[in-house]
Amino acid sequence: MEYETIAAISTPMGEGAIAIVRLSGSEAVEIADRLYKGKQALNSVDSHTIHYGHLIDPDTDEVAEEVMVSLMRGPRTFTREDIVEINCHGGLVSVNRVLELVLRSGARLAEPGEFTKRAFLNGRIDLSQAEAVIDLIRAKTDRAMNVALNQMEGRLSTLIAKLRQQLLETVAHVEVNIDYPEYDAEEMTQNLLTSQLKEVEEEIRSILITARQGKILREGLSTVIVGRPNVGKSSLLNSLVHENKAIVTDVPGTTRDVIEEYVNVRGVPLRLVDTAGIRETEDLVERIGVERSRERLKQADLILLVLNYNDELTDEDKKLFEAVAGMDVIVIVNKTDLDEKLDLSKVKELAEEHPMITTSLKNEEGVDELEKSISELFFAGSVESQDLTYVSNSRHIALLEQSRKTLEDALVAVEAGMPVDMVQIDITRTWELLGEIIGDTVSDSLIDQLFSQFCLGK
Amino acid sequence: MEYETIAAISTPMGEGAIAIVRLSGSEAVEIADRLYKGKQALNSVDSHTIHYGHLIDPDTDEVAEEVMVSLMRGPRTFTREDIVEINCHGGLVSVNRVLELVLRSGARLAEPGEFTKRAFLNGRIDLSQAEAVIDLIRAKTDRAMNVALNQMEGRLSTLIAKLRQQLLETVAHVEVNIDYPEYDAEEMTQNLLTSQLKEVEEEIRSILITARQGKILREGLSTVIVGRPNVGKSSLLNSLVHENKAIVTDVPGTTRDVIEEYVNVRGVPLRLVDTAGIRETEDLVERIGVERSRERLKQADLILLVLNYNDELTDEDKKLFEAVAGMDVIVIVNKTDLDEKLDLSKVKELAEEHPMITTSLKNEEGVDELEKSISELFFAGSVESQDLTYVSNSRHIALLEQSRKTLEDALVAVEAGMPVDMVQIDITRTWELLGEIIGDTVSDSLIDQLFSQFCLGK
Repeated sequence: MEYETIAAISTPMGEGAIAIVRLSGSEAVEIADRLYKGKQALNSVDSHTIHYGHLIDPDTDEVAEEVMVSLMRGPRTFTREDIVEINCHGGLVSVNRVLELVLRSGARLAEPGEFTKRAFLNGRIDLSQAEAVIDLIRAKTDRAMNVALNQMEGRLSTLIAKLRQQLLETVAHVEVNIDYPEYDAEEMTQNLLTSQLKEVEEEIRSILITARQGKILREGLSTVIVGRPNVGKSSLLNSLVHENKAIVTDVPGTTRDVIEEYVNVRGVPLRLVDTAGIRETEDLVERIGVERSRERLKQADLILLVLNYNDELTDEDKKLFEAVAGMDVIVIVNKTDLDEKLDLSKVKELAEEHPMITTSLKNEEGVDELEKSISELFFAGSVESQDLTYVSNSRHIALLEQSRKTLEDALVAVEAGMPVDMVQIDITRTWELLGEIIGDTVSDSLIDQLFSQFCLGK
Repeated sequence: MEYETIAAISTPMGEGAIAIVRLSGSEAVEIADRLYKGKQALNSVDSHTIHYGHLIDPDTDEVAEEVMVSLMRGPRTFTREDIVEINCHGGLVSVNRVLELVLRSGARLAEPGEFTKRAFLNGRIDLSQAEAVIDLIRAKTDRAMNVALNQMEGRLSTLIAKLRQQLLETVAHVEVNIDYPEYDAEEMTQNLLTSQLKEVEEEIRSILITARQGKILREGLSTVIVGRPNVGKSSLLNSLVHENKAIVTDVPGTTRDVIEEYVNVRGVPLRLVDTAGIRETEDLVERIGVERSRERLKQADLILLVLNYNDELTDEDKKLFEAVAGMDVIVIVNKTDLDEKLDLSKVKELAEEHPMITTSLKNEEGVDELEKSISELFFAGSVESQDLTYVSNSRHIALLEQSRKTLEDALVAVEAGMPVDMVQIDITRTWELLGEIIGDTVSDSLIDQLFSQFCLGK
């Protein structure tokens, strides 16, 4: 396949030592050669080599930038097309100038994710691998990165391929039996179908067990800190942010109003929501009103409910417990450095099965226990890093759930004694649904939509 | 010379398609080889070639990242040492992981500017060229980048070398005359010295003429918008920011409180100071109090003083004129879409020689004239891009000014009939001062201090 040559800035925007403008397509070398002046023309050099030189603005004949140009000829490249990477100085003016020159020389500005899309369209990777590329870039913790890396290397693809193969074989078996009815009774077909479909269903079910953890690793655990004023919400926030490596995800141009801070707590990426609010007023609940705060709470994956050890339990505290009923909550009793005025047995009653941690944030006590508790709550029983084939992507999870549902329909149909070719429709549908995960059976518009979520230059 | 191998992230921090971890030093290849797994070991490949592979964590034997490794052997490199560039996925976890692996394998974390410092210490570039590297990265406009590029390519170095050569020749001439006194009378020596020193002084003076523009290009024109509430300061700010490409310079971690916005106005980088204050309250002067606002005004390179066409001149307006006396001011009479209530002749009187522009920001009228006026105020008579050897760096400017001063001392001494060897001391001092610009005669501590201003990874 041949596509027009695309170009984009492939390094993050900002000041740095080096920035890269990447070109991909059949004219990549030609376009670069129109600008490049070095020892030899790029079209005469070996693949996978690096060349020092200058870019010359063809309109003024003046030196536009000092560069190192890497040339890689397809198909041994990321996109399987010819790729030219122009390494220039990492300033905003510099990299924009290089991009502008390249566009003026005939390249088209790449859409977000278009390089990866080409890797997919040219058959180098499947859709789940392409999706893992962006997960890898956005990974907030080592563990999340390992999951993405794993998926990128094709482990999920292999798993899905295996399941699809099993489904195909089941259909084939059944067809053989239909063609040679003397070998089989109707009952035997039923038994065969049931056992084989159940096996696939079981495997899908076990993949889905990892889904919640996968999603958390991928998207972060949306966490809200609640509590009355002056119980120590702000101190808790600071402890979590400072004791751990804060994962800065600010991108130039992001509005600060909606700030969320990412903190890596023992491999769990905590997405602390509305931290601006806490920092400003230490008074989230009052400020936004009970109605709105409840709504916000409902969207959280984890609630850190802070109480004051040095104060009696109030109606407000009790209302907070009511508001978070049924959610994942860790109860934090803070200010244990002061006198006990809180009725702890009453708190335990309210906390029910939720973990309860006592802290003196002022004296830096109890934060370790809290972190341990967070990690246990979400990764209890999960075997660290041994099997990293988590499904983490909502799209994959939805498709797997639909697949399971369709298989269940098939099983019901078999048991009800429906004709085999009716059952086959469900099996084929399952096979298609699984195919969507790896991009074997997806529409162009879905592909466009998926890649548009990528960052520019990838 | 041989230094230990250093490593750093050389691309801006943030999410992007590609990030680079760069190594430089005699063990760069060896260190990378300890982690890299590809078709062949890096120590066996040709220089200036690119290799696909994986980094393996030596502690766990697990794949840590998928990479493209570029290998360049010294001395044909930026630092003249062996350089290995590891291109990995542009996520924060990914790039930090690669850096961490490389450090664990024996590299030392580079200090800011240390790669460029090695290029200097290993004799690939002189100090003024090294300083231009960072100017290039930080350049806010095309013109500023061209100036930096020019300096990086050695134009300032050539100029300085020429002046130093002239000084050496002058000394040599004088010494010849001293050695062969029969050829010369004292008066001839005097005349010769005077004319040659004056020539060098004149050249330094002409270089210094570019200094102010050079500094503006390099550092931006610190601009403050003043005016009473509701005259349209906020609209003016928005016009300037939106009509021009705003140069985002936010770096993750920067506090928003001290926000400055860069705007490229016809090649002049405007650094709009305290824009947060204007945006918030539209009421800078009142808010921070006259005392503090005056202090702030004094530090500005340009004042945009906004008046209301639809309102009479107040004492507050007049006080503003007083506060900005003697500074570069552009008077903006806004709201010309409304009725004239302002006494324009009175304003003209107060404005004295300052340019005065009428605008209706609401109707987007007059902004062009304002921009033209800004550009003329600072680049009047300067020939665009023909001679880009501006001195822009404060250190260079100070050294040139000292050189000029020392030459003047020498000239006074010659005219006063001082002994020639006394004059020679001044000439030698001038030669040394000029040498500091290109790093020929500078101390180690100055070098350390200069490079520490660089960004990491350069």
